Amino acid sequence: MSSQPANANRQILLAERPSGEPRESSFRLAEGPVPDPGEDEVLVRSLFLSVDPYMRGRMRDVKSYAPPIQLDEVMVGGVVGEVVRSNQSGLETGDIVLGMLGWQDYAVAKPGQLHKLDPRIQPISLALGVLGMPGLTAYFGLLDIGQPKDGETVVVSAASGAVGAVVGQIAKIKGCRVVGTAGSDAKVEYIMNELGFDAGINYKTAGNLGAALDAACPAGIDVYFDNVGGPLTDAVIARINERARLIICGQISQYNAEKPEMGPRNLFHFIRARARMEGFLIFDHAARYAEGQAALGQWIVDGKIKYREDVMDGLENAPKAFIRMLRGENFGKQLVHVADPSA
Amino acid sequence: MSSQPANANRQILLAERPSGEPRESSFRLAEGPVPDPGEDEVLVRSLFLSVDPYMRGRMRDVKSYAPPIQLDEVMVGGVVGEVVRSNQSGLETGDIVLGMLGWQDYAVAKPGQLHKLDPRIQPISLALGVLGMPGLTAYFGLLDIGQPKDGETVVVSAASGAVGAVVGQIAKIKGCRVVGTAGSDAKVEYIMNELGFDAGINYKTAGNLGAALDAACPAGIDVYFDNVGGPLTDAVIARINERARLIICGQISQYNAEKPEMGPRNLFHFIRARARMEGFLIFDHAARYAEGQAALGQWIVDGKIKYREDVMDGLENAPKAFIRMLRGENFGKQLVHVADPSA
Repeated sequence: MSSQPANANRQILLAERPSGEPRESSFRLAEGPVPDPGEDEVLVRSLFLSVDPYMRGRMRDVKSYAPPIQLDEVMVGGVVGEVVRSNQSGLETGDIVLGMLGWQDYAVAKPGQLHKLDPRIQPISLALGVLGMPGLTAYFGLLDIGQPKDGETVVVSAASGAVGAVVGQIAKIKGCRVVGTAGSDAKVEYIMNELGFDAGINYKTAGNLGAALDAACPAGIDVYFDNVGGPLTDAVIARINERARLIICGQISQYNAEKPEMGPRNLFHFIRARARMEGFLIFDHAARYAEGQAALGQWIVDGKIKYREDVMDGLENAPKAFIRMLRGENFGKQLVHVADPSA
Repeated sequence: MSSQPANANRQILLAERPSGEPRESSFRLAEGPVPDPGEDEVLVRSLFLSVDPYMRGRMRDVKSYAPPIQLDEVMVGGVVGEVVRSNQSGLETGDIVLGMLGWQDYAVAKPGQLHKLDPRIQPISLALGVLGMPGLTAYFGLLDIGQPKDGETVVVSAASGAVGAVVGQIAKIKGCRVVGTAGSDAKVEYIMNELGFDAGINYKTAGNLGAALDAACPAGIDVYFDNVGGPLTDAVIARINERARLIICGQISQYNAEKPEMGPRNLFHFIRARARMEGFLIFDHAARYAEGQAALGQWIVDGKIKYREDVMDGLENAPKAFIRMLRGENFGKQLVHVADPSA
């Protein structure tokens, strides 16, 4: 394949603010010229896009930790790409880089917007998974807020997902009993048989989630890493041990809701248990990414952290990949393959 | 009045586990002989009883941080009393003491169950209020978990109550904008005019609680000290600032519910704000009570902390006092006056 820019740059734009679940028509494929990098700028060709739950929040026109995507703007997202033209010292044609470049074939990046990847670390898509935002989220969220101790019980929701799988494996490294929840028997088998979790719950077929948690967590729950929210989180909160720590990292079960779902008021459990709950965003930990990547990289080398990717081919299929990920139909870190590196 | 034991000891027993709001018939007045203190034991005559929201939880037959009161057992509770007979060195007839002696005229205490009070600190009932469990709850809950900083906005619910009034006044000492909620205009006027709160909300007449909070907290909410729970807490959570701290100390709006009320799922606000919430129980801080009492005592002397008591007369009226306190009909720390000291 050629590393020369093509004449066209395809972009996926936000076409509407969806009410409820996004549809493919919530997005629009546009085609324009490949941009020219200016002084100190770099032209990057996308190789892999990441699609992640947080993007659903960015499609909503509400004040949050980051500004919303505007209509007809390119969808945001992390990209692993290849430098195809560089006016910036320190970056050369052929370099593999990571950046928030969005759902498009080509993007121009200004100084400071790209992180050069070590090409020896393979696959390069790891920079969007275990060694990227999801892995770092697991690392800092679990260790800083959760502070799991040897022998404690850790429950993680969306346990086969990009974040959850890493959370559970780090908790195993820390000597915990680890229980994961997921949405299919295959995922439950995977977290138990491949990733070494002690127990797994298929939340779709378990029936009474409380009874399933009681069976899986005979000593109660000390740490909960929540990616999902909803009735599962209610059932966990009813079972937290004294001094439990709850990391609220995601609430994917709620992201398509146009108004808040109702659930039982359960704050008295926090008094009973003197439990602590804290919301988590990875961007707050940017100063320590290198520490997290070093630890995660070593665990991968040592075979203590395994990963699984779910790759859909073609930029034009990014909306499909995003929608299936929101539905939990992916199995492993959801990626979109856009192009192969030239080398 | 005489300090000699009478021939009868009246006791208020738990007669039923109430469903919903306790009634007077949930309790029963029994009369028995005044007990004899054994070796190393002390006979104490009750002077003041405390009635507190936590007792509603103890009437329920569920596992919690403390065992439930059994049917036909004496209601638990803190008491300020006078030693009327002592077989224990270090305690003498006439000493004023604090202990968890329950709703009765007389109790026998074993070594370690009584705390001798400094009779110079007046009124002696302060040991059940600002200088006792409620004041210490405010002190450690606000300062340890809430960590209020100069210029931040602190919201406290049940703000004219035994805990809330102290929370708000400590927050003022720390330089915060302090907003309290209470259930009558008189209470709101009291916290603003007497206690120096910056704003007050009568939650019963405010209508839209969110709009009332917006008006009272133009810079959002940094610290929330919750004694109440329910819709007010929902409205606060929707307005927490980045890095907000929430102390869950009580949920009095929920204590009579036989099954959990439903409320909006709102954990995404914790992610948005990277907020921290923690449940609080004063008993965890027993090793530091002296520190808290010293600070609170000094603030009282300096006029920086004011207090208000709502005293009902007669042991037989303890159930009435308890029921009205649960309804929020008390105005200030609810006490029951049982007898006067002999001196």
